[in-house]
Formats: sequence, C-alpha cells, structure tokens
Amino acid sequence: MAAAPFRVVILGAGFGGMEAARALRHAPVEVTLVDRHNHHLFQPLLYQVATAALSPGDIAWPIRAIFRRQPNVTVLMAEVSGIDTAARQVRTQDGLRLPYDALVVATGATHSYFGHDEWAGVAPGLKTLDDATALRRRLLVAFEQAELTMDATERQRLLTFIVIGAGPTGVELAGAMAELARDAMSREFRRIRPEMARIILLEAGERVLSTFPEDLGETARRSLEAKGVQVLTGRKVTLCDEAGVTCGEDRFPASTVVWAAGVVASPAAQWLGVQPGRAGRLEVGPDLSLPGLPEVFAVGDLVQAKDAEGKPVPGTAPAAKQMGRHVGRLLAARAAGRTAPGAFRYRHQGELATIGRRSAVVALGRFRLTGLIGWWFWGIAHVYFLVGFRSRVVVSFEWLWSYLTFQRGARLITAPSRRPPSDAPV
Amino acid sequence: MAAAPFRVVILGAGFGGMEAARALRHAPVEVTLVDRHNHHLFQPLLYQVATAALSPGDIAWPIRAIFRRQPNVTVLMAEVSGIDTAARQVRTQDGLRLPYDALVVATGATHSYFGHDEWAGVAPGLKTLDDATALRRRLLVAFEQAELTMDATERQRLLTFIVIGAGPTGVELAGAMAELARDAMSREFRRIRPEMARIILLEAGERVLSTFPEDLGETARRSLEAKGVQVLTGRKVTLCDEAGVTCGEDRFPASTVVWAAGVVASPAAQWLGVQPGRAGRLEVGPDLSLPGLPEVFAVGDLVQAKDAEGKPVPGTAPAAKQMGRHVGRLLAARAAGRTAPGAFRYRHQGELATIGRRSAVVALGRFRLTGLIGWWFWGIAHVYFLVGFRSRVVVSFEWLWSYLTFQRGARLITAPSRRPPSDAPV
Repeated sequence: MAAAPFRVVILGAGFGGMEAARALRHAPVEVTLVDRHNHHLFQPLLYQVATAALSPGDIAWPIRAIFRRQPNVTVLMAEVSGIDTAARQVRTQDGLRLPYDALVVATGATHSYFGHDEWAGVAPGLKTLDDATALRRRLLVAFEQAELTMDATERQRLLTFIVIGAGPTGVELAGAMAELARDAMSREFRRIRPEMARIILLEAGERVLSTFPEDLGETARRSLEAKGVQVLTGRKVTLCDEAGVTCGEDRFPASTVVWAAGVVASPAAQWLGVQPGRAGRLEVGPDLSLPGLPEVFAVGDLVQAKDAEGKPVPGTAPAAKQMGRHVGRLLAARAAGRTAPGAFRYRHQGELATIGRRSAVVALGRFRLTGLIGWWFWGIAHVYFLVGFRSRVVVSFEWLWSYLTFQRGARLITAPSRRPPSDAPV
Repeated sequence: MAAAPFRVVILGAGFGGMEAARALRHAPVEVTLVDRHNHHLFQPLLYQVATAALSPGDIAWPIRAIFRRQPNVTVLMAEVSGIDTAARQVRTQDGLRLPYDALVVATGATHSYFGHDEWAGVAPGLKTLDDATALRRRLLVAFEQAELTMDATERQRLLTFIVIGAGPTGVELAGAMAELARDAMSREFRRIRPEMARIILLEAGERVLSTFPEDLGETARRSLEAKGVQVLTGRKVTLCDEAGVTCGEDRFPASTVVWAAGVVASPAAQWLGVQPGRAGRLEVGPDLSLPGLPEVFAVGDLVQAKDAEGKPVPGTAPAAKQMGRHVGRLLAARAAGRTAPGAFRYRHQGELATIGRRSAVVALGRFRLTGLIGWWFWGIAHVYFLVGFRSRVVVSFEWLWSYLTFQRGARLITAPSRRPPSDAPV
C-alpha cells in the first residue's frame, strides 16, 4: 500500500451513499461524503410529512450525527458543480476541489415531467423535506380558503386534490390525503364539510401499483375507493395549469396537484461526460463501475442496473442500500489489498405500500399480506428502518396517537406564509 | 335578550385571544376567531425550535383543533386590513366583512428596531415559527460553511453569534445557542472545533434580566458565562449589517445576529383610528375597553395596562391570558344579562427563565429557585402549559433524550435551502 491514504469521495447521502460510507467503517480510507442538504432523509415516509402526520424532524437526521463515531468520514454540505474525471477531482459550487482515488455517485433522481417542465410549478413532486412542507401548506391552505369563500364552484375547486401517478408514492399519498380530509378535519369547520373534499388519483397505465402482483394492485384500488378516493386509470394527463388538470376531453378543476408519475436521474451523466441511458440513468458494469472509468461507481436510482435474470433493478430504498453496500465492500477490499467481491447481485425482498388506517398491501415472494395484518407489517418494518432510538419512539408514539384520536400532529401552515398556494415555490 | 345572536369577533389566537374565546364557552354568543396563521403558538419555547431542540409541531397546534368541541367558535385564517368602528365591522384582506357586537383585539406585538428598521433583514427577531426555522437554518448553515472555508478570519466570523437584548428571550436563546455549539455539535466536525464558537449577549442596560430581582439577574449572568457566553452589558448597538454588529467604538464581526431587544405593538391603533401610547400600545380603561369605544376591548402585549399598584402589566403570556379571561367573562356576563365583573386586576405570579442544562432562575414572590431545582420547576411548568397530551409526551421525551445524549432532535436545514444565510427572508 502507498503511504498516502486512499481517498473515497461519495456524492449524496441518501440510502445508497450512506450504506457505502458505512461499509467503509473499518477500511483504511479517507471518506468525504458530500450532500447539498445537512440531513439524511427517510423518503418512504415523506408523504406523511406532506399530510401532517409526522414532523420533518421525525424522518430526517443530520448526516454528521450519523457519522459522529466514524472518524474516517468527513461530511461536507455542498453542491456539486462538476467532475473532472481526468484529474480525478470533484468541483463544488463554493469552489472547492475534492481529489479522489475512488468516486461513488449516489445523487438520486428527481421528478420527470416527460417534456412538460412547465408543469413543475403547478404540479410539484415529493422528493425533499421542502417539497413536503410546501405540499402540506397547499393542502391546509386550500381547506382554509374553502372555509372563507362564498362561491360554491370555487369551494369545490379548492377542495379537489389530484395525485398524478398510481405507483407506491401516489397510492400512499392519495390514501393519506383522504384520511386527512375525512377524519382529521372533521367537525372543525363550520361552513365546509370534509366529505366535500374530492381526491382523484390519475394513472396513465391500466393498473394501480403496476410493479406489484396484479391481485395486490386490485386490493389497493378497492381500499382506496373505500376511503373515498376516485381512482381513474388509463388517463394520460395532457395539461396541468393553475386551475386544474386536463386528460384529453376531461377537465378536473383542482387547487392542489401532486406529481408522482415519473423520475429522471440527477445530472450525473452530464458531470461525468458520459451518454445517459433511459430517463437520464447511468449505465454501469457488473461491479457498478462506469464503463471506461473503473474508479467511478454509481449506486441507487440514478443507475440502470439489471438483476441476475436480466430484469431492471427497481429504484427503491432496499435496492439503493444493496448497491451502496456492494461498492463500499468492494472499495474496502481494494484499499486493504484483499480480493474484491465479484459482480453486484440484487436480492429482491418484496413490495409494500400502505393505503391508510388498517390497510396495506405486502408481497414477499409468493407470500401476501393485506388489510390489518399487512398494515402492522408495514408499520413495524418502517419503524425498524428509521435511524436511531429517538425517531423510533417519536414516530411510534405519533402513529399510536393518530390511530386513537384520528388527529394529525403536525398540521401547520408554515413559510412562505402570506402567499396564495399557487405562488408557492416548488 | 334580542333574537339575533350576540356576535363577538376576536382578532388573534395567541394567549390572550385563546383565553377570551375559551371563557365564552358556555355563553350565548357567536364567536369568530381570526388569525393570520392556522396555529396557536407556544411562544415561550420558540427559542428551542430555533436551536433545534424541538420541532415546530411540538409547540404549535391548529386553532381549529383546539376549538373542535366548542361549537360557538368559527375559526378563520385571514389577515385584518382594517376596522370600521362606526359600522362595527372588521375588514380582511380577502375582502370579507365581519360584523361584531363586541370586538376583542389581541394581535400582539412585533420586533421594534427603535427607528432602525433597516436592521430587520440582518438581525431578525423571534416571534413566529418561520422566524424560528429561519434562525435555525442560519445557525446550522454557519457551522457548515465554517467547516468548508479555508480562511481563518472568515471561519471565526462564521462561528460568532450575537444576541441583542438580555431579557428572558435573549438569555434563554444565548444559553441554548452555547449548548448547541458546545455539546450537540461536538465531535461531528473534522476541521472546526465547537469551542471556537463565540456567543455574545449584548445588552444596552446595566443588567441581565432587568425585570427579575437583581440577585437572579446576577445568577443568570454567571450561569451564562459558565456556559461560555460572553455577556456585555451597557452596550448600545449603533449599527447592524451583513458582516456584524457595532457598539460605539467596538466592532463584532458575526454571521448570525438575533434581535431580542424590543417590541412594538401590532398596528391595531391604526386600524382603530386611535392615538397609540408608548411603543404603539393601546391605552385601555379599567375593564380593558378602549376609551370612547365601549364595545372594543384589547388584551395582551399590545395593551398598556397597569396593575393595582400602578405598575405596568408585563407583556408576558400569563398577563395576556389573565386579560383574555377577564374580557371573555365580561362579555359572557353581558350577553347573558348578568352583572359583568368589575375592573381587570393583574395577579403577578412570578418570573422564570432557563439558561440551559440544569440551570434556571425562578422568582415566585419572595421565593427563589435556581440551578437544578429551578430547572426542574421551569421544565414541569412549561410542559404543563402545553396544549394537549400529545405535545406533553413528545416534548418531555425530546427533553429527556436531549438530556441523556446531549443531542438535538431537529437539527435540520430547511427552506429556502440554496440561498446563503445573508439573503434569507426575515
């Protein structure tokens, strides 16, 4: 081994980047972990922040605090502006240059509007804490404005909420929005009734939860409908504007539209000067390194990877963690002069999504759980995967309290407080 | 009684407005409670949100949820634009007109810069949840930028935090900032050391906690100094700008400046067309009604009231609650045709302020509590006054967890996430 330490730079502290850094815990390397936020976010519960069930602090943790006891990690809050693969340096917008011997790109994905980027302002997505508190504000302000208005048509528009895309995020969000409107808000307004709220889930494909087994998609659909969500499949959105959504001939006036339909990889391909694959994703070799750049690896949902059977690896948290762990172990072995593990092998563990109170769908191989049992499994699995004792206690308590009282603990309209919802930043 | 209901409009759902509405619980009146936020805020703990110990949802509750079971209250989220005292109507910015038979003005106070409103952008105060999350972001971003910079002078400036005003808010904030820097941040940075953080408390008067008994002010000062806060009294601020604070000859370069020095009443005097008193406060008669406007009452820290001994009633939460309760009871009696209570009498209960871990000062008449005992008293009193079982459990748990681990539960840098702190909106 050379005297100079082996320098690993990891871009992004999501599920993939975090696991890579953790797998390097005992390795003779210097890790620099760069993220534009100061926190690691448990994205699978972000919709609960957006619907006022949990506070941002319940599902996000300072990256530094997580690595407090791992002295070979330096955490930097910075935005990447480019990568010089010839000089092996990452450039940040503050003008820093971070030299690396190995680079792990784990910068994730963002919303894709399929060529309609102008919809971003009116149909924001849900990827960051700021997205979640902005959506929470839109939802709650719509109820407040509906209570104020004397115009019945405008009131109905204010109380119409549309979710575009019926994947796990869209399904969970639509279910949570229905419960927010019907349970948490009931008896609190004097002029509007929560039953007036209309929640519409629009899906371009023919099925709800298309990546799940077909019977579970059907179960989820029935469960959503029982909660009062209008599920419309085979409806491609042709226009989103301030006042609502159009699908071909049909117009749906609405105050709040959420985009859960598609993602595109972060601009990593551009930084690296490589040709991106489908949806901007990076193509990688069997060990997750980039073709022609053996010291550069990519993990998570910005990667176009395939499992042993040739099926695409899904853009989920478990897949990102497995990839991160693989690259971390590979680099640990390489730095220690041991034999590195072989090709990445994805192990599919299953799918799960909750529709709301006492209702979830879980597929573990051939094994199925639905209804109350599925819901318990979903809840325990999610609490287990949170970071740290504090969050597990607080989230468990908040859920128990909501379950018993039908209330929401974080129903706050916060910044920017004085603009109408249509002006909200995305 | 006339057939038409007696209409009470209450402006502001702080401590005063809430108590007035509650005291009308069993009265034959129709109450309309107007606030520009959707939540009632427990302001005494706002500094703990600003220093990342608590989440916004822990100390704020939807006003509607509080009045869910009081059907004679209608809650409206709206901003007041004016009051027509001749027609007895409140006008809102949405164009609503709210007729009243009795009006309770409880719109509180905001920061006063003593003629230097241009300092508001660089030395924000702490009155709303948005103020608190903005300050939290400034503090945390300063540490992040200090870790990034290579310039030692700039690093020291980034790690200098100034609180202007050594009343209860300033003292509690300075103590909490010192603990955030020295305990919660320790061992998490690789380039800066938390001991490098400098917290300065500037006070124009000669004493810390000038409204408290003198010995307790001295105790608080020693306790702050033991935590590493530099307490400078007799220092009048002559300039605040982006880069720091000037007091006469002395210049203090700093990244973060907080204003806790003075308040001015909300523009109620202007709405009512009356001449304001000192610091914009409303002058009221013995029953808290306005001179010449017997159907208009004012409560809380926008009022210039005197106690039985002729001393000014302090602008605190207990005083606001007492005034609100007095007016509520008076109106309940009037609406029911009973004899209304006489003049408002302020009962002073004491003063308390915490400096941090195991340290608080409490004065209850001649009775004094300091140190660990004072801290327990302070903690129990504050948990007791929170709204609802959920917040009591969550806040107690967060405090216990922080006490045992020296960590903070809500150390999140949130919106607007990509601007440097100096551009932050106030």
